[in-house]
Amino acid sequence: MSKLARSPLAPKSFPDLLPVAGVEMGVAESGMKYAGRPDTLLATFAVGTVAAGVFTKNTCPAAPVDWCRAALKATGGSARALVVNAGNANAFTGAAGADATRITAETAAELVGSAAQEVMICSTGVIGEVPPIAPLIDPLEGIYSGLSGCPSSSGWLDAAIAISTTDTFPKGCSKVAIIDGKKVVLSGITKGSGMIQPNMATMLAFVFTNADLSQGVLQALLSDITEKSFNAVTVDSDTSTNDTLLAFATGVNAGHARITDAADPRLADFTEKFTELCIDLAQQLVRDGEGATKFVTIKVEGAADDASAKRTALAIANSPLMKTAIAGEDPNWGRLVMAIGKSGERVNRDAVKIWIGDQGVAENGVVLASYSEDEATKHMQGDEVSFTVDVGVADGEATVWTCDLTHGYITINADYRS
Amino acid sequence: MSKLARSPLAPKSFPDLLPVAGVEMGVAESGMKYAGRPDTLLATFAVGTVAAGVFTKNTCPAAPVDWCRAALKATGGSARALVVNAGNANAFTGAAGADATRITAETAAELVGSAAQEVMICSTGVIGEVPPIAPLIDPLEGIYSGLSGCPSSSGWLDAAIAISTTDTFPKGCSKVAIIDGKKVVLSGITKGSGMIQPNMATMLAFVFTNADLSQGVLQALLSDITEKSFNAVTVDSDTSTNDTLLAFATGVNAGHARITDAADPRLADFTEKFTELCIDLAQQLVRDGEGATKFVTIKVEGAADDASAKRTALAIANSPLMKTAIAGEDPNWGRLVMAIGKSGERVNRDAVKIWIGDQGVAENGVVLASYSEDEATKHMQGDEVSFTVDVGVADGEATVWTCDLTHGYITINADYRS
Repeated sequence: MSKLARSPLAPKSFPDLLPVAGVEMGVAESGMKYAGRPDTLLATFAVGTVAAGVFTKNTCPAAPVDWCRAALKATGGSARALVVNAGNANAFTGAAGADATRITAETAAELVGSAAQEVMICSTGVIGEVPPIAPLIDPLEGIYSGLSGCPSSSGWLDAAIAISTTDTFPKGCSKVAIIDGKKVVLSGITKGSGMIQPNMATMLAFVFTNADLSQGVLQALLSDITEKSFNAVTVDSDTSTNDTLLAFATGVNAGHARITDAADPRLADFTEKFTELCIDLAQQLVRDGEGATKFVTIKVEGAADDASAKRTALAIANSPLMKTAIAGEDPNWGRLVMAIGKSGERVNRDAVKIWIGDQGVAENGVVLASYSEDEATKHMQGDEVSFTVDVGVADGEATVWTCDLTHGYITINADYRS
Repeated sequence: MSKLARSPLAPKSFPDLLPVAGVEMGVAESGMKYAGRPDTLLATFAVGTVAAGVFTKNTCPAAPVDWCRAALKATGGSARALVVNAGNANAFTGAAGADATRITAETAAELVGSAAQEVMICSTGVIGEVPPIAPLIDPLEGIYSGLSGCPSSSGWLDAAIAISTTDTFPKGCSKVAIIDGKKVVLSGITKGSGMIQPNMATMLAFVFTNADLSQGVLQALLSDITEKSFNAVTVDSDTSTNDTLLAFATGVNAGHARITDAADPRLADFTEKFTELCIDLAQQLVRDGEGATKFVTIKVEGAADDASAKRTALAIANSPLMKTAIAGEDPNWGRLVMAIGKSGERVNRDAVKIWIGDQGVAENGVVLASYSEDEATKHMQGDEVSFTVDVGVADGEATVWTCDLTHGYITINADYRS
């Protein structure tokens, strides 16, 4: 956790997360970088657990990203453990970095009795420093020997803290979904605050379920949901080298027969809850955006297609001039017009409609006589601000979430080496 | 001009600009928005002057951008006058905005005795407010009647001030080029400070020459040079609705026969000086970037091609985390790695080389043992900072210029309605 004050947009407290059958976890302090807080997470999974992943599109990915991609491919998504270390990203570290990741996986694999490729590894922290091996592997045996053999609901908060870096609050969410009339659990944790940009799973996020799914089904659901959740948030447009979203399905006590087709109608409620959970976690990243004082929802309608709507929404969400206007509680919708146009997406300028909150601002490409700047200012003085735009082309739509750009962001990023 | 302090990166003084045969200009105060400063520029051109333009790619362009595009097309680039008003962008103003632009052109055309389409119109300022007609047209007759009939070197500073909005210093540049053994003059002015992003000519810029060129030659040179100058700078990644770069060639006293082929070898020196002038003006925009304290050069080599190199350079230049690290004088080259990768361009991660200033930082995807962070910090404490990256793919290269992201940018944009 950061030493900074808890974000004003943070939830009141960490939610009560539900245990997931087939998943155990524990944490430790490695002494790598942080003092007085856990920085290493080991989670173990029942035999038969399948994993799916979505990774950064950054073309300079970290060693653990390389490892997870290759391991999932090699095993077809079989997973027995997850190791996460915070403090060193192990990115841009060459062969020595790759070795460090492999040795960590081998160490955990020996403990759980699996192949090294059945261990997922994630790292987060400083880029460009080769991590020392000892703090990566030394904590693992102690954590493993402390596992009780049962999933617990008490380990989630520690886990969420252990994976954090500049976060000002731990982030988690649980959902219960019905498959075939039986309850299954979904619990997830995530971390991230800066270098948040939606080009694959943003920073680190882990979702665990005891649903009994084939790896293909889990991967299909995860990839689809990512677009509407983690890939629909942005803090600062910067894409981390380490972004990783992993989902694990243990199938333990699932109470339903294995599902092997992503189009299976029994997945309806599960997919809905999985989506809600990922959106919840992704929004928590935005609520912890560095320096954030406003939670901002940008909805674009009337676009050529959904992908076009999303690119326009992200152009608005990433515009420094929009983000500073929001910070200043200024309903400067001229900047919104600029941002709509800067995306280069198809726009029917003379049919554009704009809303700030619920208030109509413009129609047919001009401001409405009824528009009240006082009312718009009042909306912008709240913690939660929304803009809706209809670009007047067709029916594509998308919603993205972001935060404002404040002196706090500058202070955090100009003054500290993160 | 802005009431803000002159940028610390500004040149010591406005340069002595050379008169251009066939060009006259004057300014006035319209009372539209600013008090105590000129905000209206009228330039007139000799019969036979050709104009070329490059305009914003923003899909919500302002009425004057629509006007100039259509007029250049209608006349084949014949130009007799240019009118610029500062204070109102006349963007997102619907039919009333288009009328205001047309009436302004008609008014100027009547004065100079031309077709309305031979008058170029540019506006800059607040987006979304329909400008009143009177302050647009009332100043024109007074300016016109005050013209002496001769080009002068004294009007440039007033002109550069008249077209400015949030600029903290007026911006201009002159060059002398040789065509066919004879001297011709190039003089240019520009304005811009925020909402600067390289996706066509950035903000407003005007270049005047007495060279005798066909319109096709002028347009070809201008489009080509724009990519290396105005489209190679960024302050905040935001693309204005009004970006316009216009060039005017009068052919008056040119001393050489008309050039009608852009590949004519007689253009060599002219092209070089035209390029230098545009780069100089574009760099002045960066030097006046809102809140800027550092002038930053980003060079990318070894890319798949020049366009790929430029996209990577811009990803670095637009990264908020890079820009804040520069503001903090922190040689945080891990963020540079992140930004290289976020562009999605082809990168051979394990062959990447990085320099800060002249010092090698990394080779083959890992930090060099010889790297001195103290030396890098010393370089970053200067006003002029440079980063060079070799992405290890092929021979493509590009250079872009940007500034840092500081508390000053937030203060300017969160606290004022510009």
